[in-house]
Amino acid sequence: MELFDWTNPYPTTRTPVFARNVVSTSHPLAAQAGMRMLLRGGNAVDAALAAAATIVLVEPVSCGIGGDCFAILWDGKKLHGLNSSGTAPAAWNVEYYKRKYGVDGNGLAIQPKRGWDTVTVPGVVAGWAALHDKFGKLPFEELFEPAIEIAERGYAVPPIVAGKWATAAEELHSQPGYAQTFMPNGRAPRIGELFRMPGAAYTLRRIAQSRGRDFYEGELAEKIVAFSRETGGSFTLDDLRGYSPEWVEPIAKNYRGYTVHEIPPNGQGIAALMALGMVEHFDLRNMPVDSVVSQHVQIEAMKLAFADLYRYVSDPRSMEVTPAQMLDDAYLQSRAKLIRLDRAGDFQAGRPHSGGTIYLSAADEHGMMISFIQSNYMGFGSGVVVPDTGISLQNRGVGFSMDPASPNVVGAGKRPFHTIIPGFLTRDGRPVMSFGVMGGDIQPQGHLQTLVRMLDYHQQPQAACDAPRWKVNRDFTLDIEPNMNPETVQGLKNLGHKMKSIYDPYMDFGSGQFIWRLSDEPDHGYVAASDSRRDGLAAGF
Amino acid sequence: MELFDWTNPYPTTRTPVFARNVVSTSHPLAAQAGMRMLLRGGNAVDAALAAAATIVLVEPVSCGIGGDCFAILWDGKKLHGLNSSGTAPAAWNVEYYKRKYGVDGNGLAIQPKRGWDTVTVPGVVAGWAALHDKFGKLPFEELFEPAIEIAERGYAVPPIVAGKWATAAEELHSQPGYAQTFMPNGRAPRIGELFRMPGAAYTLRRIAQSRGRDFYEGELAEKIVAFSRETGGSFTLDDLRGYSPEWVEPIAKNYRGYTVHEIPPNGQGIAALMALGMVEHFDLRNMPVDSVVSQHVQIEAMKLAFADLYRYVSDPRSMEVTPAQMLDDAYLQSRAKLIRLDRAGDFQAGRPHSGGTIYLSAADEHGMMISFIQSNYMGFGSGVVVPDTGISLQNRGVGFSMDPASPNVVGAGKRPFHTIIPGFLTRDGRPVMSFGVMGGDIQPQGHLQTLVRMLDYHQQPQAACDAPRWKVNRDFTLDIEPNMNPETVQGLKNLGHKMKSIYDPYMDFGSGQFIWRLSDEPDHGYVAASDSRRDGLAAGF
Repeated sequence: MELFDWTNPYPTTRTPVFARNVVSTSHPLAAQAGMRMLLRGGNAVDAALAAAATIVLVEPVSCGIGGDCFAILWDGKKLHGLNSSGTAPAAWNVEYYKRKYGVDGNGLAIQPKRGWDTVTVPGVVAGWAALHDKFGKLPFEELFEPAIEIAERGYAVPPIVAGKWATAAEELHSQPGYAQTFMPNGRAPRIGELFRMPGAAYTLRRIAQSRGRDFYEGELAEKIVAFSRETGGSFTLDDLRGYSPEWVEPIAKNYRGYTVHEIPPNGQGIAALMALGMVEHFDLRNMPVDSVVSQHVQIEAMKLAFADLYRYVSDPRSMEVTPAQMLDDAYLQSRAKLIRLDRAGDFQAGRPHSGGTIYLSAADEHGMMISFIQSNYMGFGSGVVVPDTGISLQNRGVGFSMDPASPNVVGAGKRPFHTIIPGFLTRDGRPVMSFGVMGGDIQPQGHLQTLVRMLDYHQQPQAACDAPRWKVNRDFTLDIEPNMNPETVQGLKNLGHKMKSIYDPYMDFGSGQFIWRLSDEPDHGYVAASDSRRDGLAAGF
Repeated sequence: MELFDWTNPYPTTRTPVFARNVVSTSHPLAAQAGMRMLLRGGNAVDAALAAAATIVLVEPVSCGIGGDCFAILWDGKKLHGLNSSGTAPAAWNVEYYKRKYGVDGNGLAIQPKRGWDTVTVPGVVAGWAALHDKFGKLPFEELFEPAIEIAERGYAVPPIVAGKWATAAEELHSQPGYAQTFMPNGRAPRIGELFRMPGAAYTLRRIAQSRGRDFYEGELAEKIVAFSRETGGSFTLDDLRGYSPEWVEPIAKNYRGYTVHEIPPNGQGIAALMALGMVEHFDLRNMPVDSVVSQHVQIEAMKLAFADLYRYVSDPRSMEVTPAQMLDDAYLQSRAKLIRLDRAGDFQAGRPHSGGTIYLSAADEHGMMISFIQSNYMGFGSGVVVPDTGISLQNRGVGFSMDPASPNVVGAGKRPFHTIIPGFLTRDGRPVMSFGVMGGDIQPQGHLQTLVRMLDYHQQPQAACDAPRWKVNRDFTLDIEPNMNPETVQGLKNLGHKMKSIYDPYMDFGSGQFIWRLSDEPDHGYVAASDSRRDGLAAGF
């Protein structure tokens, strides 16, 4: 029975959480799963994995057991980067899509947004295993206890998840397997309704017992492949069996005395670094924090970064330029010069100069911090859900281009352009902040906006997180959160920015989590912020 | 070094937390202390006590080891009420104050607001022990582990606590023992600064090991009495030794099909019930939720309730009328008739008719829920802190009247008029919600406003909690939160309400926690709200 009007018309101000041990997620049950591991003596990686295994259940709109993940981790001495994004099945190439879907008006193969032919080999489970192999402290199986309990006993669906679920169900109800798992009463669950996911409990146990291998070459793998065969996909056991994540060296950029670290391509983290590299040439501190001019400079830098991002970034083995070239100070300065303070610009990709890298490496021996992100991309990803397993599959294949001339063109075994980017901040080689803003194209923009607010304007993490955001769309139009000061919006319009607010129920303006280290003193701990754009919180003790 | 501007100019909307196990407090570290007990298999009482022991350290502005507490608890079958408020030392009577402080212009003894002569025998420690004796599951000592760890290693002071601490320190720095414990660098700690409290660790261990007895007749008791003797108090060992809390039968009122339960006098919970009893005679559902008329009716009912509260309520053994008489439906209806919809009223106390009680009792066999509240009253209470113990003493003696004609006149062994009120909601004898709004005079008003929002207007707990509040001051002027719609404020002014916004750093507009049971199904759990007016949150798994 409907209990309450679940809206909340009363904005309040969030306070950050101060604690020595923190887990900050977009869902409170996931945060507590992580806390449980910490309270048992586990470390940050154990906590992150328990939270990750829980969140595929409690926030299925955003991620699933069939998703991808990335991580940046401070082990106490140095940073480690993990790229556990999916690779394309062997069957995929431009011809495959032309044959199956036809061509568009430009002669390019038509690309679906949902369904099997958007699913790359899911990397999440392999990522979990890889992280635990290298850094875990508690037994791997123990990390899945909270998630399995929730899958079996169920949970009450919170407001934001419920809203996104309802929107997605309208679109995905006919995708293979979706309704069986996610529409138990023929519809999306309502706010506060108890939702159980017994199939996922089965799957998580198989994963826990096999340290993830079952997903790629065991019973789970066979179920995935069989369902693909039955319902029109192209997956083979070889596609799954051959998957492995990659440990990578994060790329970095100095900004205002700090160093910002991102995962290198195929992810879009480099866009955040490029934008910061351009913004650094402007005296933001003498522009008021929420002023038109400050926002404008950031927007223009972001557009310039995106122009290069969409032109050059792909699976690193296919790129024509190197990340170092794209991040070269002189190149970024030349791009920054294209920014006019009196008009919005219409930018093309630039031509990064050849030359050396400016990536800095740092190390320190203090406490472990992990920045972890996993996702199904668009809400519920492909919409395909393997029956009785709770495995909902991402649609990262959408990140490929169908243009043979693009380094990002679809191809067997290639990783597509990918949007999820964990971030990390250091200063003089010491760890400062683990952070990320989940949500498609917003991610590097979220990094830029929140970092500027913290590093240029000294806004505390929760305020930097809560501030209204803008989003540069793929066509360089601008989307703006409705709570941005109307005067600022008008000011941006007056500079010539074209506004286009397209409601996207799974990408919106993102969801950030920020854990900032208060000092080098062991007992001081962290201050953490969690994004109010989701149902989440930062939990700490 | 100062890291951030800790303000947050960006309001956001809080979402409630849905979980099977919830601890909701005004401080995240206290919430996690409670969670830790639940994760170890403890029950709600264990969790509440661990949170309580932690919060005296992390929110010392509001409560201390030398505070008072009340509780309402659903044991799975029925409600239990605990009154662990302090009694006056044997030395106290009107003459004591006249001799020591003189008389005012009306010939009444002058009453201090701070210092030893405001301290009644602290009930918190006895309350903890009593609750655990009757309902605890884990070993008593185990409940103090999180608090002791925090006392020894310290914690980073969050924004709201820091703000109230700074304000209080200016006033209290010269109170006996205050600066030694709470001003370690000669000032209040800044936001994010690490604050340790080793003396409290010592005290908590003594309490843990003696199940609280040490506080009343052991080493701690001796320290308290010695310090009192040295610095001008009147406490004797007998005063402490003789203390015991009281288990009481909650009083109740039906409202819109639910039953609201409060602790009976000497607390002010009856005011909430009276106000609800009057409001029930108005058709609120056909008045928009935040409209002038809806707010006006509630304000007027509250004023009428307060008129009777301040006239009649005292230590129950001294009262001239009974709670049942004050809650009599016919009496409340006659009082409701005094409310005009077109003008603010100026009310005197009424004359409750003699007659029967309308308290209802209910029982159910489902999960335990506890509504617990503890407080030092004004910020840091009396300001007196026993050296090297972290025992900060409340100033509940301020609740006594100096008027010999008042039932609430000060007297040895009497309990003063008390402001903290835990609440509980049932429906048809089944548990629905454990709730409370801490903060002096706001408390019954907070109960009224949030209950109306949930029961009349079906606003979800977090929205009901976040909505702007009004507060009827002791002189029946009105204080209003600054985020209330200016049109509503103007409308209330036009009805003749006199506005008086007096900044009170320890009472302000209160801090509520609400845990609402989603259904009778064991796995469904609760939805919880935590007040953004403090640094707190609701934590659950």
